Amino acid sequence: MGLVVQKYGGSSVADAEGIKRVAKRIVEAKKNGHQVVVVVSAMGDTTDELIDLAEQVSPMPSGREFDMLLTAGERISMALLAMAIKNLGHSAQSFTGSQAGVITDSVHNKARIIDVTPGRIRTALDEGNIAIVAGFQGVSQDKKDITTLGRGGSDTTAVALAAALDAEVCEIYTDVDGVFTADPRVVKKAKKIDWISFEDMLELAASGSKVLLHRCVEYARRYNIPIHVRSSFSGLQGTWVSSAPIKQGDQKVEQAIISGVAHDTSEAKVTVVGVPDKPGEAASIFRAIADAEINIDMVVQNVSAASTGLTDISFTLPKTEGRKAIDALEKAKNVIGFDSLRYDDQIGKISLVGAGMKTNPGVTAGFFEALSDAGVNIELISTSEIRISVVTRADDVPEAVRAVHTAFGLDSDSDEAVVYGGTGR
Amino acid sequence: MGLVVQKYGGSSVADAEGIKRVAKRIVEAKKNGHQVVVVVSAMGDTTDELIDLAEQVSPMPSGREFDMLLTAGERISMALLAMAIKNLGHSAQSFTGSQAGVITDSVHNKARIIDVTPGRIRTALDEGNIAIVAGFQGVSQDKKDITTLGRGGSDTTAVALAAALDAEVCEIYTDVDGVFTADPRVVKKAKKIDWISFEDMLELAASGSKVLLHRCVEYARRYNIPIHVRSSFSGLQGTWVSSAPIKQGDQKVEQAIISGVAHDTSEAKVTVVGVPDKPGEAASIFRAIADAEINIDMVVQNVSAASTGLTDISFTLPKTEGRKAIDALEKAKNVIGFDSLRYDDQIGKISLVGAGMKTNPGVTAGFFEALSDAGVNIELISTSEIRISVVTRADDVPEAVRAVHTAFGLDSDSDEAVVYGGTGR
Repeated sequence: MGLVVQKYGGSSVADAEGIKRVAKRIVEAKKNGHQVVVVVSAMGDTTDELIDLAEQVSPMPSGREFDMLLTAGERISMALLAMAIKNLGHSAQSFTGSQAGVITDSVHNKARIIDVTPGRIRTALDEGNIAIVAGFQGVSQDKKDITTLGRGGSDTTAVALAAALDAEVCEIYTDVDGVFTADPRVVKKAKKIDWISFEDMLELAASGSKVLLHRCVEYARRYNIPIHVRSSFSGLQGTWVSSAPIKQGDQKVEQAIISGVAHDTSEAKVTVVGVPDKPGEAASIFRAIADAEINIDMVVQNVSAASTGLTDISFTLPKTEGRKAIDALEKAKNVIGFDSLRYDDQIGKISLVGAGMKTNPGVTAGFFEALSDAGVNIELISTSEIRISVVTRADDVPEAVRAVHTAFGLDSDSDEAVVYGGTGR
Repeated sequence: MGLVVQKYGGSSVADAEGIKRVAKRIVEAKKNGHQVVVVVSAMGDTTDELIDLAEQVSPMPSGREFDMLLTAGERISMALLAMAIKNLGHSAQSFTGSQAGVITDSVHNKARIIDVTPGRIRTALDEGNIAIVAGFQGVSQDKKDITTLGRGGSDTTAVALAAALDAEVCEIYTDVDGVFTADPRVVKKAKKIDWISFEDMLELAASGSKVLLHRCVEYARRYNIPIHVRSSFSGLQGTWVSSAPIKQGDQKVEQAIISGVAHDTSEAKVTVVGVPDKPGEAASIFRAIADAEINIDMVVQNVSAASTGLTDISFTLPKTEGRKAIDALEKAKNVIGFDSLRYDDQIGKISLVGAGMKTNPGVTAGFFEALSDAGVNIELISTSEIRISVVTRADDVPEAVRAVHTAFGLDSDSDEAVVYGGTGR
C-alpha cells in the first residue's frame, strides 16, 4: 500500500455536506492502508464570486493581488476539509501551495510549476497525518509572492505532488464517472473509457475534451504518474490514464483503435484573402500573430490560383483572441500585403483520436464517409499521427459527432443516462 | 511627514463600495506625503460566515485548521483593497500576516505577537508602494503555522506594526467618530473625547467600552504609539489616545477630571455561601477557579458573622464562563468547605474612569450620590486609583449610566444623534 494523491474539484466540495462526504472517502483510503495526500479546489462558485468582487473594485483585475485574492478560496475549502476529517477521528493538516512547496515562476494568474519541495507534506505523512493541500496555487521562486496556475490548475498541483512524492496513483475526483468516448451531453450513447494512453488523452484534451486539461496530462506523462479520473459521488472505477494498459481482473484492457470523438466550438476562423503566393508571406502573417501573443490551432493554405498568383490562408484560434488577431493583422497589412480579412466565429471542430489510426488505413476514409452521410460539409482538415480534425459549421457539430461515434462502433449498448458537468478547476 | 499606520475594520470594508471609499482615503494620506501602511479586517460578516461553515463540518471548531480558515477573510479584503488603490493610479502591495513578519506564539485562535520583522513592508514602502497588511493573523515562531490573534486582533496588528516601523501615529478607522464619554446608544448626550491618556483608556476598555480592546491599548502604551480612533465615514478628527495631551490649534487639550462612564452587562456574579472564615479559604476557592482557566473580575468578601464564623465570598466573571466556574467549585466543595453556591446573571457593572479621581476626593461621594438619587441599589464595589466600579441589577444600568454622566457634567450641549455600531475586529 503506497501513497495516493487524491484531487477533489469544486463541485465535489460545494457545501458542508459535500465536504463531509469527501472526508469519508479520504478516511476510507487511509483505513485501507494508504498514505493520503489530498489536493482540493475552492468550494463550488467561490472563485467566480471572488472574480465578481474584484471586477467591482477594479476593471480587468490581474497580477499579484488578483492571485492573492483567488487563493483565499482553497484556504477555506482545505481548512474545512481538514476539520471534517478530524471530526471523523483521523488527524489531518492543511497546507497552502507555498507551505506544500509548490514553487512556480512569477507569471501571475497563469504561473508554471518549476519545482515541488514537499518537505512539510512528507513530515506530516510520516507523523501519520492526512495532508490536505490547496490546489491551483504556489509561491514564486524569486519574489516569494503567491501565484496561481490558471484554470485547471488544481489537477496540475495534484499530478506535480504525485510526481514529487513518488505516488502510486493520482486520483482526480470529479462529478463525472470518467473520460467518455464523446461528450455525453451530445452523444447519449457515449461510453466510459476504462483505460487510455497519455498520448490519446493529450490529443483529446487538445481537441476539446474538458475532463482533464492538456497541461496536467503532459505533466503526468513526463513523470509517468498514472491518473485515475473518477466520480466523487459514485465511487465506481473511472478512467485510467497511463503509459501501459491496466489489468481489470485477469484481463488486460486492450488498446482501442479509436479512443474517442472530441468536439470544440470555442474557436473562430480567420481567413487572410489575397495573399501573394511567394516565400515568406505565411511567415509574416504568423509573426504578426505570434507577436500579439496569440496561440493558433489549425492552419490551411489554399492552392494558389495560377492566373492571379494570389492565395488565401485560413487559421483557427480561440474566439476570445479574435479581436486581437484582427487588430494585429490590420496593423501589419502593408508589410504582409493582402486584400482583406474574413472572420467567422460560427465554426466547430470535430476530432477523432486513437493510436490505432497509425495502422488502420481505413480510419480516415471512414471518418469522411460518416460526415458525408450525415450531410456535414468540411471546411478545413488537419491531421496528426493519432488524430484527424475537421472544421464544420457550428450548427453541424452535434449531428457530426453522433454520426462519427456510431460509425466507429463506439456507441454503448445501454441507454443509461450519464450525468455530466464541469470539473472545477 | 512620517509613516502612518491606518487600520480599517470590517464595517468600513463591508462591500465593494466601502473598499473603494477606503481606497480613496488611503490615497489621500499618500498624497499628503505620508508613507502609508494599512491593516485591514475581513469584509463585513465574512468571519462569522466562515465560523458558520466550520460549525457545519465540525462541532466546536478550533486549533490550527480553524485559524487557516479564518485568515482567508483578510486575504480577500486586503487583495481587493490593493486592487482598488491601483485602480486610482497608485501602487499597492498586500501582505499576509506571515509575509508582513507578524511572529506569534503557537496558541491557535488567540495567539500573542512576540515579534514583528517587517522587512518586506519596509522594502515595499521604500519602493514607493502603499503596503496593505492582513490584520488579525500571524505565523507561529516554532512551527511556521498560520495563527490568529482573537477578536480585536486587527487593532493589535496595527499597533504592533506601528511600533515596529516607528510610525508617527496608528489610526484606527471604525464606524463611530471616536471614544465617547459613555455608550451613545445608552446616553444620547455622550460627548466625543478629544484626547484620553493610555491609562484612562485601559480602564475604560477593561470596564466595558468596546471601541478599543485592552490588549491593543496596552501594546500602544508599552511602545508609546499614539492612537487616533476615528470614523472612516465622516473624516472628522476623532479621539487621540496617547501619553501626553495633544494640541488642537493653539490650545493644549486639558486632562479631564473624569474621562467617561463605562458599563458592562456581559458578566455574572457567583456567591459562595457559608465559607469558614479562616486563612486559606479564599485562596482555595480562587485556586479552583484559576485551575479551570477562568479569569475573574471583581471580588468581595462579606464581613464575617461573629456568631457562626462563616462568611460569603462573591466574585464576577464573564457569563460565558459561568457554567465552568460552578462545575469547578462543586468539584472542589469538599476541599473548600462551603454551604451552597448562588449564580446570578442579571447583573450589570457601571464604572467611572478618570485620572482626576486621585486628587479630587469628592468623586467617590458624588458617584454614590448620583446612583442613590436615581434609586439604584449597589451590590458590589471595587476601586482602582483612577476608577470606581459598582455592580447593580442589569435593569438599572441604563438609568444609572445616564445619572452618573449628568452628575459629573459630561452631558453634551448639542442634541446631535451619534451613529454607533460594532468596530469589526
